[in-house]
Amino acid sequence: MSPSDSPRRPPFVHRITVRWADCDPAEIAYTGRLPYFALEAIESWWVEAVGLDWFAMHAERNYGAPFVHIDLDFRAPVTPRFPLDCEVTPTRLGKSSIAFRVVGRQDGQLCFEGNFVSAFVTSKPFAGRTTPPEIRALIEPLLEAGKS
Amino acid sequence: MSPSDSPRRPPFVHRITVRWADCDPAEIAYTGRLPYFALEAIESWWVEAVGLDWFAMHAERNYGAPFVHIDLDFRAPVTPRFPLDCEVTPTRLGKSSIAFRVVGRQDGQLCFEGNFVSAFVTSKPFAGRTTPPEIRALIEPLLEAGKS
Amino acid sequence: MSPSDSPRRPPFVHRITVRWADCDPAEIAYTGRLPYFALEAIESWWVEAVGLDWFAMHAERNYGAPFVHIDLDFRAPVTPRFPLDCEVTPTRLGKSSIAFRVVGRQDGQLCFEGNFVSAFVTSKPFAGRTTPPEIRALIEPLLEAGKS
Amino acid sequence: MSPSDSPRRPPFVHRITVRWADCDPAEIAYTGRLPYFALEAIESWWVEAVGLDWFAMHAERNYGAPFVHIDLDFRAPVTPRFPLDCEVTPTRLGKSSIAFRVVGRQDGQLCFEGNFVSAFVTSKPFAGRTTPPEIRALIEPLLEAGKS
Repeated sequence: MSPSDSPRRPPFVHRITVRWADCDPAEIAYTGRLPYFALEAIESWWVEAVGLDWFAMHAERNYGAPFVHIDLDFRAPVTPRFPLDCEVTPTRLGKSSIAFRVVGRQDGQLCFEGNFVSAFVTSKPFAGRTTPPEIRALIEPLLEAGKS
Repeated sequence: MSPSDSPRRPPFVHRITVRWADCDPAEIAYTGRLPYFALEAIESWWVEAVGLDWFAMHAERNYGAPFVHIDLDFRAPVTPRFPLDCEVTPTRLGKSSIAFRVVGRQDGQLCFEGNFVSAFVTSKPFAGRTTPPEIRALIEPLLEAGKS
Repeated sequence: MSPSDSPRRPPFVHRITVRWADCDPAEIAYTGRLPYFALEAIESWWVEAVGLDWFAMHAERNYGAPFVHIDLDFRAPVTPRFPLDCEVTPTRLGKSSIAFRVVGRQDGQLCFEGNFVSAFVTSKPFAGRTTPPEIRALIEPLLEAGKS
Repeated sequence: MSPSDSPRRPPFVHRITVRWADCDPAEIAYTGRLPYFALEAIESWWVEAVGLDWFAMHAERNYGAPFVHIDLDFRAPVTPRFPLDCEVTPTRLGKSSIAFRVVGRQDGQLCFEGNFVSAFVTSKPFAGRTTPPEIRALIEPLLEAGKS
């Protein structure tokens, strides 16, 4: 089977319950919660893709991937009336960084879309580092699959 | 007095205490807290510039300015060792929106910088609207002063 | 079958993923997050027991159950290494209030236990009220089952 | 001067701005935020009383005072219409723990009151310990003054 024949991997979607605690007097999720939701979705992607949450990365591998950039466009309010589905797609794996696209939808409607870039660091001492090889080995196939 | 002679308005700076509650196991402020900090600084700017916080806008004027875009570049970790000074500058007042630049610094060091755009809405019913005239009257002079 | 023969209802347990975002520099969940977790578990109990989350109560029924008392004893730190299972048990349904016991466990270990009391109110206008009859009809059998 | 003549120390009050971000669709501060506010007030008391915030305790002294108990009675909703003044009083300094009373007021009205108990620990390795002598030396006079 040639690469072009390979089945396209289904998108990774992390579902969030939007709670009373997340909403403000306008009866929608507070703006500041939306980056939290997107970050939670990205952390869930890490667990799925490489089997490590951020704490395990930090505690067991002595590395991390703190964010150096985020941007978000809000297209429709996020409400407590529906679950929030956050689709996470890795878009680029660099020499020492990784980029993601996150799209949030409720009941089929686009709510927000954004881009997130993380740079790899060693935890202790805190310092920049190149992409860990075991991370690269797991993520590159996902990026290839995403292109097919 | 020519414009170049007019006194430049001092920047608006909102100081935040970075607390234990804000920090993660890497001993720095959690990424998700940084948009919160920037939003808090922008709300403080509103109180200073037009005398209304977001709740007063909503409850007393029946309008609001929810965010349609945010972007942030993180230049250095935000730590609990120093206060965080967030400088807020309005950069553009449109027919129905307003844009801000927010720069966060600790102990003189640049930590993050970003852009935030809000669109004006009526609260009940929730719908887009043009920039409230009383807001325009108060903010346009600030934008002019910022250019000098 | 007599009431005393009826099968005991299994406890309601709400599972929470303890995330990097929840943890502080001591590498455990921040104290302030623990009431959030317990409240989230109680709201999940409401969804299970009466089919309404707090937003639906507020928006569709015009009532709510704000808390008038909480207490928590912390027996062991909550860590990001294990999921947190919060067991919620209604302990008393009064004329205008309801009480819950919440017990948090990780990997079989008791982490915290506490009591929470809510008083029923109408949302608009905000005022005390008696326990809504439809709530009473759904919850009283649960309390009876809990005693068997 | 006899003890009864000694000037009574003024209460320690920490003022909090209740923001849009803190409020829920009922237009009052979300219940889960209230323990956060009380904890923030207690941390501010530590800074005032012994010159250390929780991060400095952890990073510079290798000890901490995690909470083993909290209880709160909510007497009136906390609103974004007024600042929240949290009065913190140490009530007991034990062999290895310290207890506080926290009272929250807005515009002169009692909003909540509660009790908080912390147990002293060494940070690394995490283990119980007795009250640090330098902490005892600073806090005992405050407790005495509180009794006068």
